[in-house]
Amino acid sequence: MTKEIKVQDLNTDKFIAEKVAEISASVGDGTAINALSGGVDSSVVTMLGHKALGKQLRTVFIQNGLMREGEAESVAAYFSKMGVSVEIIDARKEFLDALSGITDPEEKREAITQAFYKKVFGRIVKESRAKFLLQGTILTDIDETVAGIKRQHNVFAQLGIDPQEAFGYHILEPLIELRKDGVRMTGKALGLPEELFNRIPFPGPALAARIIGEVTQEKLDVVRKATTIVEKLLAGRGAFQYMAILHDDRVTGMRDGKRDFGRQIEVRCWDSIDARTATPTRLPFEILDELASSILNNVPGVVSVTYNIATKPPSTIEAV
Amino acid sequence: MTKEIKVQDLNTDKFIAEKVAEISASVGDGTAINALSGGVDSSVVTMLGHKALGKQLRTVFIQNGLMREGEAESVAAYFSKMGVSVEIIDARKEFLDALSGITDPEEKREAITQAFYKKVFGRIVKESRAKFLLQGTILTDIDETVAGIKRQHNVFAQLGIDPQEAFGYHILEPLIELRKDGVRMTGKALGLPEELFNRIPFPGPALAARIIGEVTQEKLDVVRKATTIVEKLLAGRGAFQYMAILHDDRVTGMRDGKRDFGRQIEVRCWDSIDARTATPTRLPFEILDELASSILNNVPGVVSVTYNIATKPPSTIEAV
Repeated sequence: MTKEIKVQDLNTDKFIAEKVAEISASVGDGTAINALSGGVDSSVVTMLGHKALGKQLRTVFIQNGLMREGEAESVAAYFSKMGVSVEIIDARKEFLDALSGITDPEEKREAITQAFYKKVFGRIVKESRAKFLLQGTILTDIDETVAGIKRQHNVFAQLGIDPQEAFGYHILEPLIELRKDGVRMTGKALGLPEELFNRIPFPGPALAARIIGEVTQEKLDVVRKATTIVEKLLAGRGAFQYMAILHDDRVTGMRDGKRDFGRQIEVRCWDSIDARTATPTRLPFEILDELASSILNNVPGVVSVTYNIATKPPSTIEAV
Repeated sequence: MTKEIKVQDLNTDKFIAEKVAEISASVGDGTAINALSGGVDSSVVTMLGHKALGKQLRTVFIQNGLMREGEAESVAAYFSKMGVSVEIIDARKEFLDALSGITDPEEKREAITQAFYKKVFGRIVKESRAKFLLQGTILTDIDETVAGIKRQHNVFAQLGIDPQEAFGYHILEPLIELRKDGVRMTGKALGLPEELFNRIPFPGPALAARIIGEVTQEKLDVVRKATTIVEKLLAGRGAFQYMAILHDDRVTGMRDGKRDFGRQIEVRCWDSIDARTATPTRLPFEILDELASSILNNVPGVVSVTYNIATKPPSTIEAV
């Protein structure tokens, strides 16, 4: 069992100094690699790794094409300001290929995981010849899996690294004793900008979780544009999470006096404490009107916009 | 060209007396038949025909299985109170068979029209041996079609009656000089109950217009239940039209702690003068909550409910 450091016992300065020393001692004069997603866990690991290793750490951001508008560039820019160089790997084609023809939500999630580990990150790790892998695993991640060695073996398997070869590799998980709140505190202490450690939740499968049915380039472009509008109009209203969902159904609309069999965007905006239960935010109708007209006027092919009015449960936060 | 009687020139008592006399003179001691849908046009024609012909008129209500809950029975009950007997023809299987496998909205509408005229009503007309057909055509219906003889030939063709045979048939259209407002006035003068001549618009393809994708018995049951709830909760709020739409997309939900890949109902409620443009009614969130929870708790398989926030245009009133 991994021990837990609770927030009330967390001395962030001491924690950071210890983890930096541990990483530094483990890697020695070798090289390490890590994948930054822009989420708080991988951001904190990147900063710890950078403090410990400087140029001996290679940080990659895998552009899977499922991110929000400008996400890769803005994450890289934040880190650049803090002196950390982030390499953006264009893997859009690999992910789109992996998702082609898949409509089942579970299979979609699995395809993204496989594309990430086996195809893209696995290849980068092997080609890099780095033997140390920094991971942002937190205690919550392992609560439901088998902890320790077995889990680390699984990481190698996921990466397509042969267990025989794997003896040369080391996985470092400096956040394994923390939960999310502890990671956020550490992020703050490391000087990460508010936007990075306090962002609204965004699902692992990214925009693919907000497309019903098959994920295609055209649908990604549509949901990405709608997401930008929804996040811009709903930011700062205190909602727990808000999103645009692209439906697969076509509905009848009218454009320039002609019937236009178009797309529908569903907006969800949630009030919640911990995502276990949630209720739709009672947005003023002026905002709902603005959301609808802004989406209808700026996102090509959309003729219909709805607002979620169901609670969780029986709904879930995301639609896929 | 058919002459128009404008409402300001309409003397309903005189109009009714004239039409009753005309129908009576045309049919003589023959028999007539008409299809009652419960809409205002066919209801007014039924009353005129009844006044003129009594037992010489056979009025059928074709139960296509696409109607709202209890619709056939409640329409028949209204007319029974006024001394008019309405025969309900169970054609549910014919319509469901005709719709099987069809997902395109235009093809769906066409399949319903064909099933109505060619299969069901055409057969009833021929079997009835009635040679007079009473129809609720109004002036607006023929504005965009070729008026007169050619149009009546088309009706026979639609009914699958050979043009040679058709010489024996006569189509009577007592409302052809009126538009909707004139028909409503006439309905009032005939003593039709408020509910019949002032009902909220309901589309010709009925609930099939509110099912995205293929129409099946299961989906009809779902959208019918949701429609009952929506009409009950939104009646009397002054909205122009309101409806429940069943999506074809499946969305993720939770039931009893387990993932449930379920259905979504979209509620639309419109403010409009003439249906040419429309805006979503700004319903209080208490009502939206009540709509959502009532649908989620009472309609099996539904895990998500949305409210339309788009205007027409670019949306349309109905979704299919």
